[in-house]
Amino acid sequence: MQILEFLFGRPLANYEDQEERVGPAGGVPIFGLDALGSAAYGPEAALTLLIPLGAAGIHHIVPLSLSIIVLLAIVCFSYLQTIPAYPSGGGSYTVASQNLGSGAGLLAAAALMIDYVLTVAVGISAGIGALVSAAPGLHAYVLPLCLAVLAVVTIINLRGVRDTGAVFLFPTYLFVGSLAIVIGLGIWKTLAAGGHPMPIAAPHAMQPAAQAAGIWLLLKAFSSGCTAMTGVEAVSNGVTAFREPRTRNAQITLVVIIAILIVLLAGIAVLCRSYQIGATDPASKDYESVLSQLTAAVVGKAWFYYVTIGSVLLVLTLQANTAFADFPRLCRAVALDGYLPRAFANKGRRLVFSHGIYVLVALAALILVLFGGVTDRLIPLFAIGAFLAFTLSQAGMVAHWKRLGGEHARHSMLINGLGAIVTAGTTVVVLVSKFAEGAWVTVILIAALVLLMRNVHRHYRRLMAEIRTDESLPIENLCPPVVVVPFDNWTRISQRAMRHALSLSPEVIAVHVDSGEEQNSLASEWPRLVEEPARQAGLQAPKLEVVQSPYRYVIGPLLEFLLNVEQQYKDRQIAVLLPSLVERHWYHSFLHNQRAELLTALLLFRGDQRIMIINVPWYAHSN
Amino acid sequence: MQILEFLFGRPLANYEDQEERVGPAGGVPIFGLDALGSAAYGPEAALTLLIPLGAAGIHHIVPLSLSIIVLLAIVCFSYLQTIPAYPSGGGSYTVASQNLGSGAGLLAAAALMIDYVLTVAVGISAGIGALVSAAPGLHAYVLPLCLAVLAVVTIINLRGVRDTGAVFLFPTYLFVGSLAIVIGLGIWKTLAAGGHPMPIAAPHAMQPAAQAAGIWLLLKAFSSGCTAMTGVEAVSNGVTAFREPRTRNAQITLVVIIAILIVLLAGIAVLCRSYQIGATDPASKDYESVLSQLTAAVVGKAWFYYVTIGSVLLVLTLQANTAFADFPRLCRAVALDGYLPRAFANKGRRLVFSHGIYVLVALAALILVLFGGVTDRLIPLFAIGAFLAFTLSQAGMVAHWKRLGGEHARHSMLINGLGAIVTAGTTVVVLVSKFAEGAWVTVILIAALVLLMRNVHRHYRRLMAEIRTDESLPIENLCPPVVVVPFDNWTRISQRAMRHALSLSPEVIAVHVDSGEEQNSLASEWPRLVEEPARQAGLQAPKLEVVQSPYRYVIGPLLEFLLNVEQQYKDRQIAVLLPSLVERHWYHSFLHNQRAELLTALLLFRGDQRIMIINVPWYAHSN
Repeated sequence: MQILEFLFGRPLANYEDQEERVGPAGGVPIFGLDALGSAAYGPEAALTLLIPLGAAGIHHIVPLSLSIIVLLAIVCFSYLQTIPAYPSGGGSYTVASQNLGSGAGLLAAAALMIDYVLTVAVGISAGIGALVSAAPGLHAYVLPLCLAVLAVVTIINLRGVRDTGAVFLFPTYLFVGSLAIVIGLGIWKTLAAGGHPMPIAAPHAMQPAAQAAGIWLLLKAFSSGCTAMTGVEAVSNGVTAFREPRTRNAQITLVVIIAILIVLLAGIAVLCRSYQIGATDPASKDYESVLSQLTAAVVGKAWFYYVTIGSVLLVLTLQANTAFADFPRLCRAVALDGYLPRAFANKGRRLVFSHGIYVLVALAALILVLFGGVTDRLIPLFAIGAFLAFTLSQAGMVAHWKRLGGEHARHSMLINGLGAIVTAGTTVVVLVSKFAEGAWVTVILIAALVLLMRNVHRHYRRLMAEIRTDESLPIENLCPPVVVVPFDNWTRISQRAMRHALSLSPEVIAVHVDSGEEQNSLASEWPRLVEEPARQAGLQAPKLEVVQSPYRYVIGPLLEFLLNVEQQYKDRQIAVLLPSLVERHWYHSFLHNQRAELLTALLLFRGDQRIMIINVPWYAHSN
Repeated sequence: MQILEFLFGRPLANYEDQEERVGPAGGVPIFGLDALGSAAYGPEAALTLLIPLGAAGIHHIVPLSLSIIVLLAIVCFSYLQTIPAYPSGGGSYTVASQNLGSGAGLLAAAALMIDYVLTVAVGISAGIGALVSAAPGLHAYVLPLCLAVLAVVTIINLRGVRDTGAVFLFPTYLFVGSLAIVIGLGIWKTLAAGGHPMPIAAPHAMQPAAQAAGIWLLLKAFSSGCTAMTGVEAVSNGVTAFREPRTRNAQITLVVIIAILIVLLAGIAVLCRSYQIGATDPASKDYESVLSQLTAAVVGKAWFYYVTIGSVLLVLTLQANTAFADFPRLCRAVALDGYLPRAFANKGRRLVFSHGIYVLVALAALILVLFGGVTDRLIPLFAIGAFLAFTLSQAGMVAHWKRLGGEHARHSMLINGLGAIVTAGTTVVVLVSKFAEGAWVTVILIAALVLLMRNVHRHYRRLMAEIRTDESLPIENLCPPVVVVPFDNWTRISQRAMRHALSLSPEVIAVHVDSGEEQNSLASEWPRLVEEPARQAGLQAPKLEVVQSPYRYVIGPLLEFLLNVEQQYKDRQIAVLLPSLVERHWYHSFLHNQRAELLTALLLFRGDQRIMIINVPWYAHSN
C-alpha cells in the first residue's frame, strides 16, 4: 500500500472531486499538449513531401499552412459551439450518437480510440527517436526509453487531473515561450532585413528540383500537415474536468490552444520561407529537423538553441498525455451507453477513469514492443481517425441546431455545416492520399472495433432483458435445499461440514467416492458416527452414498452424482457443501489436493440454476 | 479426451492391475536399462582417468573392472535377500527406515531421488551428445532433441508398465545381443591369436605415459567406473510391478540384469587389454569412444559396427527409463509415510504413479534447459546417491536379520554386512574423489531434501492431530447461520439470491455498498421489494444495510462489514451468499466485474472458521 501511495498519492474521496478540477492554466497542458506538439511535426511532415520540388517547394509552405490554419479556425469555432451545447462532455461520440444515431457515434468513437492509441505510441517513439538522433549513444535503448516514458506518463495521469496539469505546465509553457521568442525574433530580423535575413547558422542547402509541383503532391503535403490537427477534440470531451464556470473555462482553454497553435504554424511557415529552410531527408545522415534549422538560423547554436530544442523534444515525447486525458473519458461515455465493459465508467482511487488508462497503456506498450520502439511505419495510420471524428461531430452539431431551430441556431448551423464540409473533404483527401501506405489498416481496425462494441452492447442488452425486474420478492414455496456433502473420511472438517449441512436443511446426503486406493471404514462407521446421533436428536438421518470409481477419478464421478441428484429432485435447490482446507501459506497448498476448487469450477461450468455451492473453509493451525 | 487416449491409451480400471504386471522378459528393459547402459560408459569413464598413464594404463582396466564386478556381485546377493524380505517393494528407503529409523530412510530416499533426476538429465544428454558427435549437423538442436527424448520417454511411461516393457524390449536386447556378439567374437579371435589379435580397424594410438600409476589415480578411476552401478536398486523397489510369483520374478530379473552387466564389463575389459584400446580425450577432435574403437577393432567398420553403435546410442539415451520406473515408486513409499504430498501415492489413469513422473520430468527438463542440454558438469554429482542408498539398505538388512535371529538369518546377515562394508567404503571413495568437482552439491541437495521431507511430515502430523477424530456427530445447538447477501441493485439475480437466503435461515442481512457513482433506488424501494412480502409471509423482514464508500472501493468496505457482522454475532455461523453471474464463454467475463471471485478469495484469506461462502451462480442466456 505504501508504494501505491508514494506513486499515485493517497486515495481521493468523491467529495474531493471539485478540488481536482482545473482552470485554463492547467487545462492547456492537459488537453493541449497533443495539438501544440503538432507545431513541431506538422510543418516538417508537409515540407518533407515537398523535398522533390527543391528550393521551389519551400514557397508552398505558406499557402499550405494557411489552409491548415483556416481549417483549424473553422474546427475551433465549431467546437466552441459544441462545448456549451454539451456541457457534460461533448466529444464526437456524444454529439454524433445523440444527433446522428448510435452507428455514427460508434464510428466516431472507434476512429478516435484508434487514433489515441496510435498517438501515444507514435508520439513517444517520435520523441525518443529525436532524442536518440541527438545522442546516438542511446541507440540501443530505444524501446526501454519509450516504455519508461510511457510508464512515467501513466503514473502521472493515474495521480489525477490536477497533478497532471501541474507536472506538464512547465514543459508546455517552456516550449511555447521559447518557440515564440524564436519566431518573434526571426520575424523582427526578417522585417529589418527587408525580407531576406542572414541566418546565424546556415540551414541545409536544398537539393535541386526533381519534379514540378502537382496537385497530387500538394494534396499529400496538405494531408500530412493536417496531422497537426489531432488532439483538438480533447477539450470538448473533457468539459467536466474544468472548474466552474466550466463551459467558459473549457472555451477559453480551447481558444488559447488553437491561438497558440495558429501563431506557431504561421510563424514557422513564414520563417521557413524567409530563411529558405526546407526539410531534409529523414533517412539521410545529414538529417536535421526543420525546427532545429530554423532555431539555429535565428538565434545561432548557442544555449538558447539547446533550451528550445530540448523543450521541443520534451513536448514531442509528452504529447501522448492528451490521449491519456481523453481516451478514458471517451471510453467512459461509450461504456455508460453499454457499448464497452462497465468498468470503464468507474472512477479509480484518484478519481480518474483508471480502466481506460490501463487499456490505453497496454495497447500502446504492445505496439511499442511489437515495433521495437520505432513506429515510423504507423504514421500513415493516424489523422484519419481524428478527421472522421471531426466530420461526424460537426455533422452531428448541424443536426442538433436543426432540431433546436431559431435564429441563433441557424447561424450556428452554418458554422458547423461549413466545418462538416471542410473536415469531410479533408478526411477524403487524407484517406485517399494515405490509403495505400497504411490507412487501409485504420479502416479495418475501425470497422472491427465498431463491430466489437455492437456485440458488447447486444450482450448487455440481452442480459438486462433477462435479469431486469421490478417485481417484489416472491416469497411462496420457500423450501430449504437438498444439501449434498462430499467427503473422503471422518475428520473434524467433515464433522463440522455435516453440522453446517444439518443446520441449513433437514435433507442431507453425504457422498463418498471409493477409488479403491485405500481402506476406508466410513461406510461401516456411518451409523455410529452420524445416523444414530441424528435420530436421537429427532432429525432425519443423513444418508451416505458410496460411489465406486474403478478408474480412480474423484471429481468426475462426484459431478455425475451431483447432476443425478439434481435430476432426482426436480423442483428443489441443490446445495453442494464443500469442506475445504485453507492453508495460511500458499506453498502448503501443494500438500493437499485442490478438489474443492476444481469441483467448484466444474460445477459452475456444468451446473445450472438450481445448484449452489457452499464453501466451508477449515483454517489449518488456526487455534 | 481423444488426444489423451491416443497418447496414453484408455484409462485402466483398478481390476486391470494384474494385467499390467510383467515378468522377467519385460522387467529387464524396464528396470535394467540404466544398469545395462552403464556398460557403455563405466569402462570408458575409468579408462579416461587412466589416459595419463599411456599404454601402461590399459593394463589396469582388468583389475579395476574385476573389483567393480565383485562389488556388483556382492550388491546383487544382498538385494536378492532384500526382495523376499520386502515383497511389497524393498527399496533402500523402506529397508533403511524400517530398520534404522526414519532419518536413515529419508537420507536414502533423498540420495536416490537426486540420483534419479540426475540420471534422467545426464543420461539423455549423454545419448544426444553421442548422436550429435556422430552427426554434427544436429549440433544446433541439442536441447530440442534432449527435450524430445524426454517427452517420448515420459509418454511411454505414462502409458503404464506393460507398454513400457514392450517398447524398450527391442533396443535393450539389440544392445545386449550385438555387444555379446562383438565380445564373443573378440575373445575367440584373441584366443585364436594367442592373446594378441590383429584389429580390423586399428584403435587410436596411446599417448606416451605422462605419469606413473598412483593409488589416488586408481581410486579415482575405480570410483568413476562405479557409475556403472547406478540403477541396480530399481528391481528391489519395484517388486510389485512383477506378476506372480513376484518375488521370484523380481529375483530372476535382478540376476539376469547383473549377470549380463558382469559379462559385458568383463568382456570389455579383457578386449581392451588384448586389443590395446584406451580412452581418447573427449575434448580432442579425434575423440572416439572405447566401445566404438573396440567394435571396429573386432568386426571392422561395416554394417554390424553401425548396428552395434546405434544400439549403444539408443540405450544410452533411454537409460533414463529406469529412473521413470523407480522414482515414482520411491516417492509413493515416502508419501505413504507422510513425508511427501499425498498425491504421489495416487495411481493415474494408466495405474502408474503419475505425479512422481510429472515431478521427475519437470526437474529433469529444468536441468536440461538450464544447462542447454549439455550436462557434463553434472556427472561428478551422481553415483554418490546410489552408493549412499546401497550402504543404508545393506546396513538396514543387517539390522533386519539381527532382529529376526536364527541360523539362516546369521548367514544372510554376513552377506549383507559384507555388502554394507564394501558399499560404505565405495561411498567414501566416490565422495572424497569427486567432492571438489561437484559432489559437495549433492551433499547439500540431499540435506535440503531431507529437511524438506521432515517439514512436510511435521505439517501433516500437526494437521492430523488437529482434524483427526473418532467422535460421532455432535448434534446439539444446531442453529441456522446469519446469512449476509451483498448486492448492487435489484435484478432477478438478487431476487433469487434473497429467496435462497430466506430458505436457508430466518436471519438475513442484505448489504449494499454505495460508492456514490450511480443513482440507486435500492434503499428507498427496499420496503416494497423485500420487507413487505417477507412480513406478509410471516417472516422476519431482512434488513438492508447501506455502506458508504467515499473512496469508491467495493470489496474493502464489504469485507469490513462482514467481519463486523461476525464480531456482532459471536456464537453464530455467518454465511456470505454471493450471487454471481456465470458466462458460458470465458471472454464474456471481461464484461462483468469479478467481485464475487475476489471477495471469495479475500474471505478465505481473512475470514475464520465461522464464515462460510455460498456461491449462487446465475447462468447468463441459459433459457
